[in-house]
Amino acid sequence: MLGKDGQGRPQQLAIAAIGGKCDDRPGNRMHHFGGSGMADFNIGFVIFPGITQLDFTGPFEVLSRLSTPPSLTAPSRFPHVKTHVIAKNLEPVASDRGLSFLPGQSFETCPALDLICVPGGAGVVDALDDAETVDFIGHQGRQAQYATSVCVGAFLLGAAGLLRGRRATTHWAYTDLLPLVGATHEKARTVRDGNIITSGGVTAGIDFAFTIIAELAGGDVARAIQLGIEYDPAPPFDGGHPDKASEAAKALMLQRNGAAHGGMRAALEALALR
Amino acid sequence: MLGKDGQGRPQQLAIAAIGGKCDDRPGNRMHHFGGSGMADFNIGFVIFPGITQLDFTGPFEVLSRLSTPPSLTAPSRFPHVKTHVIAKNLEPVASDRGLSFLPGQSFETCPALDLICVPGGAGVVDALDDAETVDFIGHQGRQAQYATSVCVGAFLLGAAGLLRGRRATTHWAYTDLLPLVGATHEKARTVRDGNIITSGGVTAGIDFAFTIIAELAGGDVARAIQLGIEYDPAPPFDGGHPDKASEAAKALMLQRNGAAHGGMRAALEALALR
Repeated sequence: MLGKDGQGRPQQLAIAAIGGKCDDRPGNRMHHFGGSGMADFNIGFVIFPGITQLDFTGPFEVLSRLSTPPSLTAPSRFPHVKTHVIAKNLEPVASDRGLSFLPGQSFETCPALDLICVPGGAGVVDALDDAETVDFIGHQGRQAQYATSVCVGAFLLGAAGLLRGRRATTHWAYTDLLPLVGATHEKARTVRDGNIITSGGVTAGIDFAFTIIAELAGGDVARAIQLGIEYDPAPPFDGGHPDKASEAAKALMLQRNGAAHGGMRAALEALALR
Repeated sequence: MLGKDGQGRPQQLAIAAIGGKCDDRPGNRMHHFGGSGMADFNIGFVIFPGITQLDFTGPFEVLSRLSTPPSLTAPSRFPHVKTHVIAKNLEPVASDRGLSFLPGQSFETCPALDLICVPGGAGVVDALDDAETVDFIGHQGRQAQYATSVCVGAFLLGAAGLLRGRRATTHWAYTDLLPLVGATHEKARTVRDGNIITSGGVTAGIDFAFTIIAELAGGDVARAIQLGIEYDPAPPFDGGHPDKASEAAKALMLQRNGAAHGGMRAALEALALR
């Protein structure tokens, strides 16, 4: 699907138009918040300077479609999903490759989230040092139904104390740092431990998002969204995992991640969370 | 890799710092443009209101890494790549799901592109009616080394006259419209005909981008980037192609794409390009 509902209206407008209709079945928590209408499920992505944008934009594309019904005749389980892009303030946020986003919510205006997702990128090094960012993630993550991360976003969950005693994963070049936040590395593309879901590097966020859709809304909804965004991957090469990559590719990527790895280690050691 | 070079500087700054170094081997065209430094390969994504953002952000993440060297010892073939986000003007552009981007170039300031990529989304319907957008794509597409599209972005290439007599593809629910721009549908995730490369719906843009990286910089660079962004897809379901999807999922997605499909047909028939 291409972002319009059956009536051809942009989805955001359609949601606003049907804002008075509530789904009050058990398990669907309702949030009412000033000036932003009503949502039956609030999804929030925390962004910060130096994010790797696909960590965030991949799962955003999937999770923002959570309102998709299972079929033409069955109703949506979450007809009033809201997907929020959240930053410290409403200034533009640039990715590590220079792609600039405008946040829709600041830490102050953001409603209580049902699902918080923290992406990665080398910008995590500075974000780890920012008490406001870490506190926001901790506060929201502790009350959310799901606290999740993609790539090295895991270390921001960890800095907020959310990974202590948990199994977790992160980008392959950073898994050795997981013990610094009290977590144990589990080798998988998506790792679930209680209400904490962490995923591997960058593109792992797409697979992780489908897992969440299936859990919340069922496999039929996940498959419908998958068809809508034609997620039938056919990589022309098979080198996306260290177990399959050449030694030369691994050496190159370890070198290019060296500065961020060192910065993350130093920031995490300073937090002394073990 | 996480968007920093070996020295830990954000890549955009690193490019600026080494701006004086040129690669003048045959085949590497040099562009000089006022105030923006020097690039050996200019990549441009055209964005417009109502884009499906993953059409654009997926290949952006891959193609913006074209400067990656093949190994620790071999030099980059394109050390000074620039990746531009281009819109009619510099106002924020919102995707069909409400994600807002800040363009870095307007149609007026954009340098001559070596590769132009046009994403899709229901916003294509309005963009087809916008002569400035179609003219920009036609002008840049005719002089570029590659004119490319993801999803229904193909119809903007087509409206600009670039698909006449070509084999092409687009989102599966829109392939029947390709003859309206003089193109013949070829059933594949990425279709190359001369210097025109079109790809299927949304996530097909990631696979397509790796194909381009391999052609320009070689398979070792493509594999290194693939490892860097851990592109080792493991979808939890296998319904991403109409050949594998249920009839119910297809019916739902055709219905949800109905308005955009009708709008695109009307806009393309008005152009009378056959």
